[in-house]
Amino acid sequence: MNTARRGRGRPPAGETDDRRSAILAAARTQFAAKGFAGASLRAIAREAGVDPSLISHYFGGKAPLLVATMELPVDPVAKIESVVAGGVEGMAERLVRTFCDAWDPHHEVFSALVRTTIAGDDPQAPMLQLARNVLVSALADTIEGEDVELRATLVAAQLIGMATMRYVVRLDPVATASVDDLARWYAPAIQPLLSSPRFAG
Amino acid sequence: MNTARRGRGRPPAGETDDRRSAILAAARTQFAAKGFAGASLRAIAREAGVDPSLISHYFGGKAPLLVATMELPVDPVAKIESVVAGGVEGMAERLVRTFCDAWDPHHEVFSALVRTTIAGDDPQAPMLQLARNVLVSALADTIEGEDVELRATLVAAQLIGMATMRYVVRLDPVATASVDDLARWYAPAIQPLLSSPRFAG
Repeated sequence: MNTARRGRGRPPAGETDDRRSAILAAARTQFAAKGFAGASLRAIAREAGVDPSLISHYFGGKAPLLVATMELPVDPVAKIESVVAGGVEGMAERLVRTFCDAWDPHHEVFSALVRTTIAGDDPQAPMLQLARNVLVSALADTIEGEDVELRATLVAAQLIGMATMRYVVRLDPVATASVDDLARWYAPAIQPLLSSPRFAG
Repeated sequence: MNTARRGRGRPPAGETDDRRSAILAAARTQFAAKGFAGASLRAIAREAGVDPSLISHYFGGKAPLLVATMELPVDPVAKIESVVAGGVEGMAERLVRTFCDAWDPHHEVFSALVRTTIAGDDPQAPMLQLARNVLVSALADTIEGEDVELRATLVAAQLIGMATMRYVVRLDPVATASVDDLARWYAPAIQPLLSSPRFAG
């Protein structure tokens, strides 16, 4: 990246890759310093020397930008979007299947994320930002009824619990259960939190 | 403790407190070396220099002995016994309420247990032994139907997930929700795993 030619507020002269890299570097700095809520796209753009509109153009928003800084093998934003797009009916089953299909092949990465988050005491840890600003916010935007934030966060708790058993501490039979068996048993335990109480059993 | 007068297989001459201490010390050594399944009451009794029957007399069995070695501010064996004693109906609500009432006042202890367990890579970690040999085994003994072990372990996953959100990473609104609100929303998400499929909605 040609930092020598980059000035405050001036777009870099480099290619798209350079600008993306500059934005990601600035985002990592800002998210680490100020957390997700505190970091502004404007400040990130200023530090990267690009126009703020370029961030939305490249990344689509602050949450996807956060996820991009993590260089994950899975795109949680796209995954959760595909889950909620189908509506509340059957959402729990799609959530369990999508989660396992995405993370089973990358269980070491998930495990490392959890270990780092739990070991530290950092409310801005990447895993927590992901849980709050990608998973919980997408669920809370979709489900209806009372206590939407609490219910969405409890669903995140269920997924974190299952993933901790399956990937981190590897407790059987959850560690080795088929995705079909997990979907069969865990989805009916998640769905009541997603369904609006009007429709709940 | 008067170790000088203690010999292999011979009960110590000390008081009850001394024998209890000797059993706990031997149990810690054996559980650490061989894990819960590998450690035998006979070997613990031999190391402590007491008759094996004394262990059952003092502690009531291997699982309560394990819990006693942890010196927890909560007695999980008694708590889970009170929860399962009431039968499957309403068990999820009793589980959530009993769990929170027991651990809310000791959230730092729970948090420390989780951090130690997750940070390490020890399948014999106290928290995992507790989850497997106290919580999961009590639930699996009580619930009926198919895949009892998987369902019991998924319930443990739900509790670990909730406790991680509430005590460890302290993510709102789960961190600060009232026990009533948690019971209201989370119990209906746990009960489907406890109810026999015949009775499930």
